[in-house]
Amino acid sequence: MKITTRNIQFQTKGFTHIIDITSKVQALIDGEGFEEGSALVSAIGSTTGITTIEFEPGLVNHDIASMLDKIAPYGVNYEHNKTWGDDNGAAHLRSSLVGTSQTIPFKGGKLILGTWQQIVFMDFDTRSRSREVVVQITGA
Amino acid sequence: MKITTRNIQFQTKGFTHIIDITSKVQALIDGEGFEEGSALVSAIGSTTGITTIEFEPGLVNHDIASMLDKIAPYGVNYEHNKTWGDDNGAAHLRSSLVGTSQTIPFKGGKLILGTWQQIVFMDFDTRSRSREVVVQITGA
Amino acid sequence: MKITTRNIQFQTKGFTHIIDITSKVQALIDGEGFEEGSALVSAIGSTTGITTIEFEPGLVNHDIASMLDKIAPYGVNYEHNKTWGDDNGAAHLRSSLVGTSQTIPFKGGKLILGTWQQIVFMDFDTRSRSREVVVQITGA
Repeated sequence: MKITTRNIQFQTKGFTHIIDITSKVQALIDGEGFEEGSALVSAIGSTTGITTIEFEPGLVNHDIASMLDKIAPYGVNYEHNKTWGDDNGAAHLRSSLVGTSQTIPFKGGKLILGTWQQIVFMDFDTRSRSREVVVQITGA
Repeated sequence: MKITTRNIQFQTKGFTHIIDITSKVQALIDGEGFEEGSALVSAIGSTTGITTIEFEPGLVNHDIASMLDKIAPYGVNYEHNKTWGDDNGAAHLRSSLVGTSQTIPFKGGKLILGTWQQIVFMDFDTRSRSREVVVQITGA
Repeated sequence: MKITTRNIQFQTKGFTHIIDITSKVQALIDGEGFEEGSALVSAIGSTTGITTIEFEPGLVNHDIASMLDKIAPYGVNYEHNKTWGDDNGAAHLRSSLVGTSQTIPFKGGKLILGTWQQIVFMDFDTRSRSREVVVQITGA
């Protein structure tokens, strides 16, 4: 068994911008020649999320945002905002609830996911950001 | 250290049907003779969930469903439904929020969980399904 | 590669008491001399949560509690409570939603997290508790 730790980087627009990173994770498995193991996908930053979803426009551009707007709306004067002069309390709340990492198994060199199940990064912050996600592959 | 990847399969009824899979995960650890490590439990499909819960009827048949009905109710005409002619937007939303995998440590060959803490699969879809969950055991 | 499983223990006050355990996880990595790998942080008990957050008073003492009070309020007569004579249905619901484990990668002997991103334990129960969290480190 061996372990490889890599970063992937990209630009985001914030406000629950959802990015499909499945092919980037798969490319790292391919590039390192792993056959069986797991990919730990872990976002850096407390206004981010990692989860899986069917990556299609209805969910990604509308329905997820609507759900999270009920739970932790943007534009509310959270205690976080009052303390730090920030405006992104909602982003921190969404991040804690969705979680910032997920681990996906692979076998035969291929991530084991449903046909309509993609690994996504969510940027909950209230501005454009340059983001880094750690992908750590453990296996043989 | 070694790694073993297995599937467990079962039938579900959908609509947030919750199934206790703890004993099946433990049986795989026993069968492979592992002593110390972790079990990555990862559901295949974007209308599923994996989490832990006290598996008792009040929570499993009533309270979890009531909570999720507030967050992502069934029967709403989500953008996902409009786009695809589906009726299961709520299932996708619940899945992204709960998450589709969890990793549980074990030592002395036994999963480390609370006395009233079970590993569960949740089927959020709007119909009966045949489901697969990957259990990948890493350890010694 | 090797694997080490340890417990950390502490007292909590319940009612969504949030405790920063980042330095305790880092100390275990340091103490065992690991360079590259991951820390699986898994709470024992079905009224607990593990996630990451910016550990600052506004979020930790106010905003997280407010968000969860909307999703799964304390003081409601849940089916769980009726069945068992308990009063902590809300704690079980919060735990299932937030999740009880998260895995964090490290490299160069240091956990890879954002500057304002800490690993936290959440006690959702309705009383003071003595708690245990398993930290299992896998790597080289």
